[in-house]
Amino acid sequence: MSETASTRTPLSPTPRSSLTRSKERGRTDRAELDAVLDAGLICHLGVVLNGTPVVVPTIYGRDGDTLYLHGSTGSGNLRAAMTGDVSVSVTHVDGIVYARAAMHFSMNYRSAVIHARPTELTDPAERMHALRVITEHAAPGAWDAVRAPNKKELAATVVLALDLTEASVKVRTGGPRDEADDIATGGVWAGVLPMRQVFDAPISADDLDPGIEIPRHVLERCSDTVAAG
Amino acid sequence: MSETASTRTPLSPTPRSSLTRSKERGRTDRAELDAVLDAGLICHLGVVLNGTPVVVPTIYGRDGDTLYLHGSTGSGNLRAAMTGDVSVSVTHVDGIVYARAAMHFSMNYRSAVIHARPTELTDPAERMHALRVITEHAAPGAWDAVRAPNKKELAATVVLALDLTEASVKVRTGGPRDEADDIATGGVWAGVLPMRQVFDAPISADDLDPGIEIPRHVLERCSDTVAAG
Repeated sequence: MSETASTRTPLSPTPRSSLTRSKERGRTDRAELDAVLDAGLICHLGVVLNGTPVVVPTIYGRDGDTLYLHGSTGSGNLRAAMTGDVSVSVTHVDGIVYARAAMHFSMNYRSAVIHARPTELTDPAERMHALRVITEHAAPGAWDAVRAPNKKELAATVVLALDLTEASVKVRTGGPRDEADDIATGGVWAGVLPMRQVFDAPISADDLDPGIEIPRHVLERCSDTVAAG
Repeated sequence: MSETASTRTPLSPTPRSSLTRSKERGRTDRAELDAVLDAGLICHLGVVLNGTPVVVPTIYGRDGDTLYLHGSTGSGNLRAAMTGDVSVSVTHVDGIVYARAAMHFSMNYRSAVIHARPTELTDPAERMHALRVITEHAAPGAWDAVRAPNKKELAATVVLALDLTEASVKVRTGGPRDEADDIATGGVWAGVLPMRQVFDAPISADDLDPGIEIPRHVLERCSDTVAAG
């Protein structure tokens, strides 16, 4: 997630990245986009394949103003992403908002929607950098501890780079926004049921040499539930 | 989530709902689709708008073989969904799979991808039923406790029904699948870091009458962290 402040490009909304609904939830600060992306583990990638939309989950990584995706050379969705526009969405649900009226129920969330025309990376060093960024996004600290991609694996892998300048960010926080009449009527509980994702204790592979300890970069992620060290 | 077994339609894959990658992760049992959808809170809806894909998060509900979506009449994405094909994806990430080689890192997940041509509901009873299903999906037990949609709210709301017959389900569980050479080389920890979503204690709205207690249908959802009763 390295970046140099001077090279950052501001979010520049186009018609398709401009919010038409719930504009008060919009965020235009570039740092908010980065925060939503960096907090996520998977994105939902939308492509147009044979004239119809297809949305699939996939992992990703971010470095500065670039989002990286990868996949198999055999993936039809990836091939569609190499030749047309894509939309990438990353969403965190932070809570369920209970209101006094059914139509005011909502979610607290942080959401990023990106529009881009991906570029396929062909330079070996750029590809390796992107694969490192994607791996480190899913598993910080892991890249240097494991075997790097070999020639055969690289030949079977497509790596795409997306520019992050055309994006919108929406954030909802806080309690329900009920009608004054419904609040006055009373009698109904309203509030928020907060949610979050937690890591549980790591499970070593069945075929792991029993002498190998769980590394710090894994234990650090589950400090809520496991005593590190 | 009511359903009658005799009316259930089997999953009938078409080319666009047939897996081309990681087929061993495919599930064809209708109950697995239902389970993935019922466990989710939001979906990612993909539409084609002005020729390019757009993926946005939204809430949903399921009743038997039908998925319901709703939104504002002012939403361009909903309008696109009313006039063309959509793809809807629901994904749960259950763990991060740490392997001995970078290209074998993965996620444990449950994922559903649906393809459909939505139908806009116009019958008032059907629309109200769909809104109930969507509200009960987000907040089980809440519909009967709160004010139902009124005429003004209904006039501002589009309700869509999607048929669930064209869908694919993928599930990955278990540890890393490393190359024999990498396992033999040894020295690298491999395993799974499990993840799950938890609810924290409910937060009552600032403007809530202090005499109103948190209802059982809310407390029941956070039994991990809050003693119900």
